[in-house]
Amino acid sequence: MDDTGDDDRIHQGQAEHSTFDGEDIYAEDGSIRSDFLMHVGAAIADRDLLFLRRHVARLHESEMGDLLEAIQPEQRRQLVSLLGDDFDLAALTEVDEAIRLDIVEHMPNEQIAAALGEMDSDDAVYILEDLDQEDQEEILSKLPFTERIRLRRSLDYPESTAGRRMQTEFVAVPPFWTVGQTIDYLREDADLPESFSQIFVIDPTFRLLGAIDLDRVLRTKRGTKIEAIMRETNHPIPAEMDQEEAAQLFEQYDLLSAAVVDENGRLVGVLTIDDVVDVIQEEAEEDLMRLGGVGDEELSDTTIETVRSRAPWLLVNLLTAFVAASVISLFEATIEEIVALAVLMPIVAGMGGNAGSQTMTVTVRALATRNLDIHNAWRVVRREAGVGLLHGLAFGLMIGLVAGIWFHDANIGGVIAAAMLINMSAAALAGIAIPLFLDKAGADPAVSSAVFVTAVTDIVGFFAFLGIATWWFAIR
Amino acid sequence: MDDTGDDDRIHQGQAEHSTFDGEDIYAEDGSIRSDFLMHVGAAIADRDLLFLRRHVARLHESEMGDLLEAIQPEQRRQLVSLLGDDFDLAALTEVDEAIRLDIVEHMPNEQIAAALGEMDSDDAVYILEDLDQEDQEEILSKLPFTERIRLRRSLDYPESTAGRRMQTEFVAVPPFWTVGQTIDYLREDADLPESFSQIFVIDPTFRLLGAIDLDRVLRTKRGTKIEAIMRETNHPIPAEMDQEEAAQLFEQYDLLSAAVVDENGRLVGVLTIDDVVDVIQEEAEEDLMRLGGVGDEELSDTTIETVRSRAPWLLVNLLTAFVAASVISLFEATIEEIVALAVLMPIVAGMGGNAGSQTMTVTVRALATRNLDIHNAWRVVRREAGVGLLHGLAFGLMIGLVAGIWFHDANIGGVIAAAMLINMSAAALAGIAIPLFLDKAGADPAVSSAVFVTAVTDIVGFFAFLGIATWWFAIR
Repeated sequence: MDDTGDDDRIHQGQAEHSTFDGEDIYAEDGSIRSDFLMHVGAAIADRDLLFLRRHVARLHESEMGDLLEAIQPEQRRQLVSLLGDDFDLAALTEVDEAIRLDIVEHMPNEQIAAALGEMDSDDAVYILEDLDQEDQEEILSKLPFTERIRLRRSLDYPESTAGRRMQTEFVAVPPFWTVGQTIDYLREDADLPESFSQIFVIDPTFRLLGAIDLDRVLRTKRGTKIEAIMRETNHPIPAEMDQEEAAQLFEQYDLLSAAVVDENGRLVGVLTIDDVVDVIQEEAEEDLMRLGGVGDEELSDTTIETVRSRAPWLLVNLLTAFVAASVISLFEATIEEIVALAVLMPIVAGMGGNAGSQTMTVTVRALATRNLDIHNAWRVVRREAGVGLLHGLAFGLMIGLVAGIWFHDANIGGVIAAAMLINMSAAALAGIAIPLFLDKAGADPAVSSAVFVTAVTDIVGFFAFLGIATWWFAIR
Repeated sequence: MDDTGDDDRIHQGQAEHSTFDGEDIYAEDGSIRSDFLMHVGAAIADRDLLFLRRHVARLHESEMGDLLEAIQPEQRRQLVSLLGDDFDLAALTEVDEAIRLDIVEHMPNEQIAAALGEMDSDDAVYILEDLDQEDQEEILSKLPFTERIRLRRSLDYPESTAGRRMQTEFVAVPPFWTVGQTIDYLREDADLPESFSQIFVIDPTFRLLGAIDLDRVLRTKRGTKIEAIMRETNHPIPAEMDQEEAAQLFEQYDLLSAAVVDENGRLVGVLTIDDVVDVIQEEAEEDLMRLGGVGDEELSDTTIETVRSRAPWLLVNLLTAFVAASVISLFEATIEEIVALAVLMPIVAGMGGNAGSQTMTVTVRALATRNLDIHNAWRVVRREAGVGLLHGLAFGLMIGLVAGIWFHDANIGGVIAAAMLINMSAAALAGIAIPLFLDKAGADPAVSSAVFVTAVTDIVGFFAFLGIATWWFAIR
């Protein structure tokens, strides 16, 4: 009983909000409360172990992660060293890569190895994979044999695969056991994973036969054979499967956990929904960041790292901007004559750019969520073309009217209206055709669609407006 | 045993990939196989119930959803009517709103009521909430009393709250029961939810005392009291909590399910991770769509619906474009004299726009994931200012050099370099200050940041470039 009670307290601390002074440690806006931070800072400075053990060591790993991100780098290292073995390394799975590496680099490899041995293998791999080869080897060599083998197996799978993300601890029983035998086994075996939501059924060679959800075990009589209540796993997740694909299976079939098998159909691990939630989050974030022209940057990156990671995209845009500028320069003579054209031309290009980016956003997202495929692509293309045409007519008329009045010249109004119609249509077509083409060609449409779409709307916009103007004022 | 076997087959169909001709019904690219669609189309036309029951009625709800989205509207209605009671209404939770409404409108209310009675309450509410008041009332009136009360309770909570999303079926036991009693109850009570991953502990007035994960029940001896192994729920989810906030709790604490309580602390339902995954997905998608200037549109929207939903954003952009144009018109005389300025000015504005949108994307995302708060805002602002300055210097020099050579005029090169430095710095500051300000003001930074940032970079870009040029060529 004593044991249970203790275990329970730990469990409790991990599953619910932590409190400080009887209140949530988070402020209204979701950031950590300033007074809590002040107390922690003071406790670190005073080496107040009592306070740190009581209020910091017991934080949930994600709360500890938020705390580590909120304090200064120097304080972080001191805190980790003060807490010693009380520091739960799992908190490092919740912080930016830069912070993780900084903390790990300042920890002795012995301490890391000891802590990793206590963790679920998926968290341990998450921390190990970012270290350089040398540190990784040294830490692995300090681990017990079975732990080492387990972690090596996960690390051997390529990054971003199910094998890399899986947890190698799982519960598996033979099909001829009864529900009663299974429950007795669970009650007696101390070496179970910390938590699990499925029991797997395997043959003597570890080949996966099926799985059972825990609620099913609980509602079945003791005498029933496992094979009678297991459901077959027609499509277990191959360890080499990309994590994004695995996440889509979880989403589609509302899975809580799924078996991961090697190329021989042998059970090697389990992928759980909490890892998958992270993957879904990451993938959605990736699309958003890529569409915005930023890569894998993190908030903790330095100025120089940020400058470097964003510059390539700006450089590509610079090239297309010069192409657009050279289109304008073809019409220098016309602009010199009618300077109103220079005033108005950014409107044509800008409106096209916005319309194109609307279509592109919808297309990229629909491709990512697999809502856009060969069955509806043609219908969506026609719709977008219609939208471009109608927007072109409506906004063309509007802008034409305003421009005509502004410059007291109906000709200018007519020219800009025609150019708008052309550019809005081009924008719609580019907005859908470019991501579709990139996707077909095997490229990620989120990465490069924006630059191509903007290039098209700039070039077509300037060319249509200045070209029509030159032609019209020449023949008039 | 017979019963178990049957149940199992249904379970199996719901948890794994379906097959057709022994192969996955999905093609490589994630769309439904064309030959399967052809067979389904033919079976609908021939009223081939045998084929439909065998290959279509048994699809997982999400597969059925994909199928419904891939076939023609007329086919959809025929398929649903041919399948009759074999049609699992849960598939409607997996399709676009427009398709859902179309199908429901063509179903008799009796059939809908009968089907809703069989479903988990969260799915039933999902379908009911989009119907108009009249249909909703009629369907509810046809349901058994307890079902009706349950669904009404969920529907009474505002949209996008935990109460609206929760499932009202759950397993709850008193604290003085033993593990053995609990297992016996689960084995005997037929009226349990279809699946569950947690058991709640309540007092006689339904006040929530705690919860136990199923694995904990399974590994504990029969004689142990429930209260000894339950963990207290310090912060259950209030039914009025916004679903996004609830999702963040799930993510932060890696929850699989969580109790939802009313204002008196009484257990009213359970929120499960699969609903939360949908919320996370939706929220991430919302940010992406809003940044791209599109609202809640769906792929099945018509051309007119799309034109209407996107036009407001384009209109706002049009207004800022006219402001930018009027800035240009201040410098008509200078442009008339030096037409190269008209050629180059879009480069200054465009590069600023791109740099600003990079910073804005990072800021909006960091705000959404609560990674950006008062503890690091100042550091990030300084970093972005530094990035703007460095990019301004680097790209200013580059563009200045190219422009100077292009137009054989070092003055033009110098002017554009200076303007670039100013505009890139303005872009960085606008990119972070505007979303931060909108967030502080309680607005969603994803919705309107882009238009303000572009307005700033256009106006500052044109003003700086043409203004410096006018001044420099005047004093030279």
